[in-house]
Amino acid sequence: MVALRVKRARRRTNKEVAALLEGLADIVVGAARKKEDPSFDIPVRALSNVAFNPKKRFIEMGRAKTARQFFNLGMARKFMQTMLIADALMELQREDVTTSLREVYYRTKHTIKGTSENTFDDQDESDPIIEDLEVTLALLREELHVRAKSWGTIIGPIVIRDAGDTVDCSRQGIGGKTVPSIVEPGYVDILRCSADFVLLVEKDTQFSRLSEDKFWKSHNCILLTGNGQAPRGVRRLARRLHDEWKLPILVLMDNDPWGYYIYSVIKQGSISLAFESERLAIPDAKFLGLSSRDPEEYGLPRNVGIKLNDKDIARAKEIAGYPWFQKKEWQQEILYMLKSGLKYELDVLANKNFRFLTTDYLPKKLKQKDWLD
Amino acid sequence: MVALRVKRARRRTNKEVAALLEGLADIVVGAARKKEDPSFDIPVRALSNVAFNPKKRFIEMGRAKTARQFFNLGMARKFMQTMLIADALMELQREDVTTSLREVYYRTKHTIKGTSENTFDDQDESDPIIEDLEVTLALLREELHVRAKSWGTIIGPIVIRDAGDTVDCSRQGIGGKTVPSIVEPGYVDILRCSADFVLLVEKDTQFSRLSEDKFWKSHNCILLTGNGQAPRGVRRLARRLHDEWKLPILVLMDNDPWGYYIYSVIKQGSISLAFESERLAIPDAKFLGLSSRDPEEYGLPRNVGIKLNDKDIARAKEIAGYPWFQKKEWQQEILYMLKSGLKYELDVLANKNFRFLTTDYLPKKLKQKDWLD
Repeated sequence: MVALRVKRARRRTNKEVAALLEGLADIVVGAARKKEDPSFDIPVRALSNVAFNPKKRFIEMGRAKTARQFFNLGMARKFMQTMLIADALMELQREDVTTSLREVYYRTKHTIKGTSENTFDDQDESDPIIEDLEVTLALLREELHVRAKSWGTIIGPIVIRDAGDTVDCSRQGIGGKTVPSIVEPGYVDILRCSADFVLLVEKDTQFSRLSEDKFWKSHNCILLTGNGQAPRGVRRLARRLHDEWKLPILVLMDNDPWGYYIYSVIKQGSISLAFESERLAIPDAKFLGLSSRDPEEYGLPRNVGIKLNDKDIARAKEIAGYPWFQKKEWQQEILYMLKSGLKYELDVLANKNFRFLTTDYLPKKLKQKDWLD
Repeated sequence: MVALRVKRARRRTNKEVAALLEGLADIVVGAARKKEDPSFDIPVRALSNVAFNPKKRFIEMGRAKTARQFFNLGMARKFMQTMLIADALMELQREDVTTSLREVYYRTKHTIKGTSENTFDDQDESDPIIEDLEVTLALLREELHVRAKSWGTIIGPIVIRDAGDTVDCSRQGIGGKTVPSIVEPGYVDILRCSADFVLLVEKDTQFSRLSEDKFWKSHNCILLTGNGQAPRGVRRLARRLHDEWKLPILVLMDNDPWGYYIYSVIKQGSISLAFESERLAIPDAKFLGLSSRDPEEYGLPRNVGIKLNDKDIARAKEIAGYPWFQKKEWQQEILYMLKSGLKYELDVLANKNFRFLTTDYLPKKLKQKDWLD
């Protein structure tokens, strides 16, 4: 089956992004000319302004804003920093280059003339300001040309264009194709895709197993991994495959509270990056496994389970309390883990045999549509 | 320039590896038949049996061996474990699949019939036994079909065959091609290569910068990264490019004791895996940067340096004492770091401008052959 692309995503051009950054500068210049206090409004990025939207099914920001003023002793430093970062981000647009959060910090760090004061003392000061600007200008970090780590890999029946090169991801051997940090349209274009679904795998080990067994071929799917918690590039790519090619996203994680959490970030977004849920979250993503019932269902011995520690138990209870985990099935899933007192890694499937994941576990799971929503 | 391959590497076939594993079983069976104590010799993997070989210029194992006996209260458990692991490794050869260290642990873990004793309590018990077998049979872990993480990426004028797929790494966009865990001949074949050298970059940030700027094209090199300490696949691939295609390997790391250490592992191998130096170490590798003199040379302000902490200082002194760091230039390099009291990340080059690494730093370094050996 050849999936049909339903809509073509578009990203803001360098020119558009530059105009937004300039708009910010204009506010300041305008105020200065009118001898007013330069000030602009920034949406509040705090727990108090974040909520789960049950209709949209993701964590989103509220509408609270706060003014950032120059003539305010408590804010002057932050104001200055905001202008410096905006200037560096402008440079990125002008020169059409991308960079990392850390490099933005180093780029904007200097000692203020005539003082011994640094513009930034460490990266903890610059990162939040980049986030402030993202949310103020309603731009993705990627549109501001700031990249995250590119630790993801993709394999499957999909042809992409990465920076002008056409890459057929069904001809990338066992290793696969590295997913770049920035996968926005123009950086990465999805030219063709005939997969039926996306299997997003937490760990490299299972990804390698499935790649070696050409699971993507026998089950006509795309294999994606982020080597742990999926980096932004991997999440965005999954989201685009879901939006533009209508592919279901199935997620395969360890059976532990951390696995639940990673899944929930993919599905509903995170509290700390709530303002990006709209373009990162995938509310339709399903949790394929490992479920806390699987060890019994698939005949795994209890001794391959790992005892939950106090932190695991606290975390599991916390997760059970999240509004987006209130479905009956999820409450049972978490309760079952707590009752058993054990967590299980995906790797335990090797206890049966090395290819059990490919030959038994996944085929049965998929056939029975045995997943959690 | 098109590099010419000088020799074709070869790996042991599944049959050869299986024969070696069987040989081990034969010793045990033979002894049992003769009603003797089953026992075999294992090279000692301890600091006492490891030394730097100044002629070969890498860390190697000595010739000390120790017997592993079945009828020995202190060894019976280990003996049993060794047989179980050897059996699992045999399964990998028979079925021609690869797996991870962790999965070997889970595969061989069970409760011994009629007891409540586990064959293995945790992975700390199984990993050393795999290493014992590697060194006893003089096999690479990869030949035993046990893989490490595949966290590396490659870009440049090189065409490889990865599991039957021919991949031109000069047409892999900005993201590049994922380096598989196992790059032994047969898994990965290097078909063509016209690069002049390999630039092995510690971190993804600089790799992305160089990829975006197509540095590999302007300087006709291969870019490799392992996202931190290079995983085995990346090290083996660099080694093969050095051996088979005579490419110089230049290494680009942060200027801190950890950077020195990562470099020294690439160059001389590590103490813990001394038995694999012969096929992993690259004694000709050069340290291109970041050198502790670079910040001055390239006009970086002191305030982008990070103060060395007590651990850094102790580590730097320890490294200065290693026999393989005794060259005058290296002693000066480390002393200079200690004197300045600062360490520098590669990211600080962004302080000049975002593309400084590509446009100024590396071209000058390469032109002046300003590296440490």
